[in-house]
Amino acid sequence: MNKNIFPFSDRHIGPSIQGSRAMLAALGIPSLETLISQAVPKSIRLERPLNIPEAANEAEALAELSLKMGQNKTHKSFIGQGYHGTHVPAVIQRNLFENPAWYTAYTPYQSEISQGRLELLFHFQTLVTELTGLPVASASLLDEATAVAEAVGIAWRHHREKRDRVVLAGEVHPQILDVVRTRAEPLGMSVNGGEIDASVAAIIVPWPDTYGVYGDHSAIIKAAKAAGTLVIAVADPLALTITASPALLGADIAAGSMQRFGVPIGYGGPHAAYLAVSDNLTRLIPGRLVGQSVDSKGRPGYRLALQTREQHIRRDKATSNICTAQALLANMAVSFAIWHGPHGLQAIAAQVHARAARLAAGLEAAGLQLGGERFFDTITVSVPGKAASIADAAEKGGRLLRVIDQDRLGITVDETTTDGDLSALAALFGASLPNDPGVKLPSTRPAEGFMTQAVFHQQRSETEMMRFLRRLADKDLALDRAMIPLGSCTMKLNAAAEMLPVSWQSVANVHPFAPSDHALGYKSLTDDLEAWLSEITGFDAVSLQPNAGSQGEYAGLLAIRRYHLDRGDDNRDVCLIPESAHGTNPASAHMAGMRVVVVACEEAGDIDLDDLKAKAEKHSENLAALMITYPSTHGVFEEGVKDICAIIHDHGGQVYFDGANLNALVGLARPGDIGADVCHMNLHKTFCIPHGGGGPGVGPIGVKKHLAPFLPGHVANGSGHAVSAAPFGSASILPITWMYIRMMGGAGLKRATEMAILNANYIAERLKDTYPVLFQGRNGRVAHECILDTRVLKDSAGISVEDIAKRLIDYGFHAPTMSWPIAGTLMVEPTESESKREIDRFCDAMIAIANEAAKVASGQWPKDDNPLVNAPHPAGDVLADDWSHPYSRSAASLPAGESEDNPKYWPPVSRIDNVAGDRNLVCSCPPMQAYS
Amino acid sequence: MNKNIFPFSDRHIGPSIQGSRAMLAALGIPSLETLISQAVPKSIRLERPLNIPEAANEAEALAELSLKMGQNKTHKSFIGQGYHGTHVPAVIQRNLFENPAWYTAYTPYQSEISQGRLELLFHFQTLVTELTGLPVASASLLDEATAVAEAVGIAWRHHREKRDRVVLAGEVHPQILDVVRTRAEPLGMSVNGGEIDASVAAIIVPWPDTYGVYGDHSAIIKAAKAAGTLVIAVADPLALTITASPALLGADIAAGSMQRFGVPIGYGGPHAAYLAVSDNLTRLIPGRLVGQSVDSKGRPGYRLALQTREQHIRRDKATSNICTAQALLANMAVSFAIWHGPHGLQAIAAQVHARAARLAAGLEAAGLQLGGERFFDTITVSVPGKAASIADAAEKGGRLLRVIDQDRLGITVDETTTDGDLSALAALFGASLPNDPGVKLPSTRPAEGFMTQAVFHQQRSETEMMRFLRRLADKDLALDRAMIPLGSCTMKLNAAAEMLPVSWQSVANVHPFAPSDHALGYKSLTDDLEAWLSEITGFDAVSLQPNAGSQGEYAGLLAIRRYHLDRGDDNRDVCLIPESAHGTNPASAHMAGMRVVVVACEEAGDIDLDDLKAKAEKHSENLAALMITYPSTHGVFEEGVKDICAIIHDHGGQVYFDGANLNALVGLARPGDIGADVCHMNLHKTFCIPHGGGGPGVGPIGVKKHLAPFLPGHVANGSGHAVSAAPFGSASILPITWMYIRMMGGAGLKRATEMAILNANYIAERLKDTYPVLFQGRNGRVAHECILDTRVLKDSAGISVEDIAKRLIDYGFHAPTMSWPIAGTLMVEPTESESKREIDRFCDAMIAIANEAAKVASGQWPKDDNPLVNAPHPAGDVLADDWSHPYSRSAASLPAGESEDNPKYWPPVSRIDNVAGDRNLVCSCPPMQAYS
Repeated sequence: MNKNIFPFSDRHIGPSIQGSRAMLAALGIPSLETLISQAVPKSIRLERPLNIPEAANEAEALAELSLKMGQNKTHKSFIGQGYHGTHVPAVIQRNLFENPAWYTAYTPYQSEISQGRLELLFHFQTLVTELTGLPVASASLLDEATAVAEAVGIAWRHHREKRDRVVLAGEVHPQILDVVRTRAEPLGMSVNGGEIDASVAAIIVPWPDTYGVYGDHSAIIKAAKAAGTLVIAVADPLALTITASPALLGADIAAGSMQRFGVPIGYGGPHAAYLAVSDNLTRLIPGRLVGQSVDSKGRPGYRLALQTREQHIRRDKATSNICTAQALLANMAVSFAIWHGPHGLQAIAAQVHARAARLAAGLEAAGLQLGGERFFDTITVSVPGKAASIADAAEKGGRLLRVIDQDRLGITVDETTTDGDLSALAALFGASLPNDPGVKLPSTRPAEGFMTQAVFHQQRSETEMMRFLRRLADKDLALDRAMIPLGSCTMKLNAAAEMLPVSWQSVANVHPFAPSDHALGYKSLTDDLEAWLSEITGFDAVSLQPNAGSQGEYAGLLAIRRYHLDRGDDNRDVCLIPESAHGTNPASAHMAGMRVVVVACEEAGDIDLDDLKAKAEKHSENLAALMITYPSTHGVFEEGVKDICAIIHDHGGQVYFDGANLNALVGLARPGDIGADVCHMNLHKTFCIPHGGGGPGVGPIGVKKHLAPFLPGHVANGSGHAVSAAPFGSASILPITWMYIRMMGGAGLKRATEMAILNANYIAERLKDTYPVLFQGRNGRVAHECILDTRVLKDSAGISVEDIAKRLIDYGFHAPTMSWPIAGTLMVEPTESESKREIDRFCDAMIAIANEAAKVASGQWPKDDNPLVNAPHPAGDVLADDWSHPYSRSAASLPAGESEDNPKYWPPVSRIDNVAGDRNLVCSCPPMQAYS
Repeated sequence: MNKNIFPFSDRHIGPSIQGSRAMLAALGIPSLETLISQAVPKSIRLERPLNIPEAANEAEALAELSLKMGQNKTHKSFIGQGYHGTHVPAVIQRNLFENPAWYTAYTPYQSEISQGRLELLFHFQTLVTELTGLPVASASLLDEATAVAEAVGIAWRHHREKRDRVVLAGEVHPQILDVVRTRAEPLGMSVNGGEIDASVAAIIVPWPDTYGVYGDHSAIIKAAKAAGTLVIAVADPLALTITASPALLGADIAAGSMQRFGVPIGYGGPHAAYLAVSDNLTRLIPGRLVGQSVDSKGRPGYRLALQTREQHIRRDKATSNICTAQALLANMAVSFAIWHGPHGLQAIAAQVHARAARLAAGLEAAGLQLGGERFFDTITVSVPGKAASIADAAEKGGRLLRVIDQDRLGITVDETTTDGDLSALAALFGASLPNDPGVKLPSTRPAEGFMTQAVFHQQRSETEMMRFLRRLADKDLALDRAMIPLGSCTMKLNAAAEMLPVSWQSVANVHPFAPSDHALGYKSLTDDLEAWLSEITGFDAVSLQPNAGSQGEYAGLLAIRRYHLDRGDDNRDVCLIPESAHGTNPASAHMAGMRVVVVACEEAGDIDLDDLKAKAEKHSENLAALMITYPSTHGVFEEGVKDICAIIHDHGGQVYFDGANLNALVGLARPGDIGADVCHMNLHKTFCIPHGGGGPGVGPIGVKKHLAPFLPGHVANGSGHAVSAAPFGSASILPITWMYIRMMGGAGLKRATEMAILNANYIAERLKDTYPVLFQGRNGRVAHECILDTRVLKDSAGISVEDIAKRLIDYGFHAPTMSWPIAGTLMVEPTESESKREIDRFCDAMIAIANEAAKVASGQWPKDDNPLVNAPHPAGDVLADDWSHPYSRSAASLPAGESEDNPKYWPPVSRIDNVAGDRNLVCSCPPMQAYS
């Protein structure tokens, strides 16, 4: 290793030496170590350095990773099975996928600064409704397999959890079946073939099946309708551009993967799955839904509808714990559709189909037997006893086929398949290619009346498309412009060097079911990550499969469930959850078949130890687990955390550790040492994967040795109980975390944690006289975030926390987490990546807002007409001819003045009407005239 | 080739089928072919398709180019000689280099929409003054060799063209000497060693010399001072961070390359060269100079100073024809300095030096003889008779050394050199590495008082740096937001697929003097381009070496000059130039040793044939060349162009064809067929290389067979007369043009030309009733641009063309070319890439502006207070508490209303004061307090 004259940690960490000295001085303490010893209980401190390789600099780490991933083989894949080659249009790659304005954005809870990505997600929903023919679509789900599982969940809840059978109308992909069964089992549901009766919640219709065949499902669908059973279609969206839609089939729900709409395979993820439902199921749809609303002046504006935020999840009534979407990928997929338009999509589909049909005809002419008459892109060939040898020959030619069993091969054609590929494939079977044999689809969809919305027709030149993407991005406020101080969400730097590898061919073009020797680079990467994350968290084993924090929670609880069952403790189904927990906790517990018992919290936010003891004792026989967040959701390091874990263990329970706040622990303390048995990590929070405007995420779990056998497996590896479609979930973004850890080293990671705590305590110090800081630890210190009580402004001036949040937009900031965990508060988490300069700018804004509220309190400004209640102020409002407000236009829009350090962000809309947004949930035809 | 279902030409060309039909209908003609036959004289039409390979689609072209460039070998280079390995910081790569907001911007003539790039270029100038110790620096030059040649030009002019000797104080790099001699020869100057006397214009002091040695030049510098001779230092800027500056040496001028400040080698270019001078030489500095001025409200604002625009070049009094800078590269280089700061740069330099010193000490300890005592990064080793064999051994180990001759090797260490490299290099010589042997530099520069400006200290974290680059980019209006309808400048789409390859390692990391078998990919690329450009222009040979249009002009005239000299026609030195020509034409002619004779133009803009005949006859004996722009600088296809060429040929002259307007010809007519002997092309206009905010460019020339022997050569290939430092000039951006031509195919290229002509004629049609369209061809058609006479508004309302240009900013547009070629006009060139929608938005704005002027004319608005004379309106102005203007705030800033199609661009300043900008030319310390 050469001397590292440019440690990346100095780039990742915001405050300079001078900045951190000044902050420590403001806190009245001599050193960072003093602060940490005040904030973090000594009993949990890790007293040794992390055993992580010494930090590499940017160039070294990139070179090392490039070598590593160079071990992957990027053969052309004909495996299919839900993952297809696709051309990422360069205009989308550069202007969306590789653009920090898109990928560093947060989930669009604050509608006014999220109109760009909300609009694009709305178009995504429209696209899905057009493809499926169903009226309501969500803003995407995690992957195809979990989307089908969510569809089953809808059916379960639709039938009030009373129907316990799901019937397969045909064979879906094995990984889909496995995930659906994993998810159905704790609910007591079976997933099999069989007759339709009143016990069947849903049938699953593969369209086409895993062999590529479009069957005739009319009889079973008719039976289902008669029995009140829901019909779930699993459909390929590219095929849907030219063949019969799920709605035409009679489906109530449709699900599938949008990956082949311009999102790289990336060893299995992340991709956007789609889910669409009929009108009567709208309220049961899981995850994100974008609705169209209006702002206070009647301008059209988008917002997340139906309060689909994690803290609003129906807790233990939930059927889903999903609180995110694959926003970035959904936006890539719909951009692909916007770029190509309906005719372009149909041209791709027609070409794919024509090639598959030619190959099929050639093989049939050569005497081979195929799987079925009607197909789109996939043909299954019978080659008794010769599947392996033909696949080997194909591999030598640089092509991968699906080996279904020793007698059958699957060949899936995609957008990237060439005539040369077809000839080579035919030759493998001793066949040659005939001319166009005609269409082999069940029916064809007319081009008219399909994707007729203007947005799918206006961006056909690259100049228009580039500007369209820029225009949308400019509406939004992301990390590339300003601090996003979101408590519990850890919006830290997503460094460019971390992001570059995601675009590499060696990362993007590996099929998740490729032979293992094709993914040696990924193997080495995941081995590193599993080892590093184990060391960081103090666990014995790590699974990288869960592709969201919620999925990590679920996988962790499932491991606990399976552990108890394995020991014969069938009765252990009680899950203790503190009342301060994230809403996903009870939802996950419910999904894992557990009963939720709530544990009280003290006024200071800590768990009520007495109540915990009492509940543990009371449920001792049935105790399955405790879910605990640490530092607490109130942003403090509870002193008694080790005792809490001991109590649970004493009663035979397992401790589930919610890693949402891991950014306060890395290098300082380890959940495994504290007493946790399992913990999930949010790589998209603590480990630098960007939030992508609302996804993707990665939620690995670490477990102690005794739980390791119960980590998720995968059918591709001969096991099961998977929680994600692909063995490594969102594999292609794991290099981001690898780069981060590799460039930080153990010392850098620890320093980042310390600086995150310093930044938070500095904010608390600067703002405590203006806004009371709720919940502090023993020494008056917070952890990595602090809760500001803004109710003082409500009391004095009638200014709500929402007014403050919206007013921050005028100052150029994304609001902190609002009214969570305590109504009327703001939870502020600066992370280590923000400089003192930016933190001061934020504190200045918060103080200025309090001063504005004082003018309301004093009567200088009326309570119903002041810059706070009217915030945010778009340009059209402040430039209006009539200005009757008691404050000036510049006070409205340039409250911090004009300066280099306060670049002006202009919100495109004024405050969005939340109620109207819920009324206009999904509208497949945006009222274009509203813009003209 | 597979069926191309997505022809790139449909993406590159803006108007849809419906759009072009509507435009044709507006023109009252049935087809594009009708328009072309009206606009383009039949006599010059190419009646066959271009012989260019059929178009590949985006994915195919990328794959093909990837294979091609994969033939390059990217060994680690220790060749040095002006080209050094460097780490491009990822934050700069992603947020600047690969960001269309930066690279699609135009040259910052319109200051108000260019404050971001002007500010960064200003910082570049500051950086150079800090490094060199000289008070005035330009905004960069084309490359190191031409920068030294420009320095000699300054000396020549400083001495009123009376001193004809340049003396070398030591050996500069061979390619520098060659270019300087190429440029000196037509001026009658010699460049050699020798004594100093009053005939010596300048001495050139290499700092260090080509062998890496820092000599003692005190005696010759003293003699130069005594003789009034200027001292030019050629200095390595990285070394300058730790060693004595040129100013300390006594230099009047310093020049060199900023490549190693984070700009990839890229096979020799493009990079930014620097030039700095003492105060008394300020007015002689060539190229771009950014000055600090104020806007109409006193806000600080930057602008290009001293009117360094091509049409303002001193025509035949010029000593330089440079009318651009390497803006994008200069901005990358200064971003590198901002990112690392003075201490970081010194750390890099110290590490580079320490490694070189260790290697040197090791080699000396092993008994080898080195070139000199004092060095920075380069050591020259004597290995009698063994240079080739050691270099071969090094190459086998993946490293390239410089083979100076059979007895000497050069080894240059850089930022990317590792300890492993050092050991391997030492081993080649049977040496081993000692510990740190101490500093081997002439003197060391103290860290204090160096780069003390705030900008070099505030962006040390990546978050800050990312936001700094975004903040600057947001100040500017580039192609990624709106049409830039610049007549003569052809601001067309720079497609993402064209840009992606520039970032490839195989493109970025090839040394220009690597053995030829290391650059087989580049060889194949340049072979393709030479063949395709020859076919497109109708010439027999093409040189890709000139790295700007001006350099192409110069190289073309030089070829003509050398041709005449070769035939013994020493007297042929008269160059006829129409009075409508670009200012660079006479400047180039002057530099090429020619006398300029101006040819009159008719009122309609065409060349006055009678005057041409008369002048040609008068100068028949001495006629060297005619320079002609076609279509004319007035934007029309002159009918008599073939006759014009014939007249010149009849009198023994050569026809030089200015290719600025080639976008109107490609596929329709060829300069070579029309009668030209030589023509330059602007790849950064016609062939999609982005303007980069003012550079880089590429200006190849095509010539007829008889001129081919006189194309530029290069010392690296055993020839000379180079016009650029590297054999292929700006080689690493040639893939952009390759991709464009490969994806368009011959038919696509032709269609692009036709659509460019259609778009221009549609604008002329839509605006002719509002603004008279000057200069039309025989059928009332313009070519690819049109000249709008805005003097009608001056006459009616006192509204100047500048008022219109600045008012367009409020409407969200970059103004067309202003007052050129006719004062008081706007020359509009939409290019083929703009859609009818955007063109209509522009026409609507132009008509709305005329309507605004009508209100001034009618007296509704005063002449000195209306939205036109007050334009542009930054946010601070329209939000000001006092608003006494007779028009509303929304009329000021949202004149086209709020809509998706009219995204608001906010200018950061109001109108910039041009005079103040010339007064504050270069200020090494920007008044930061002005912002606070």
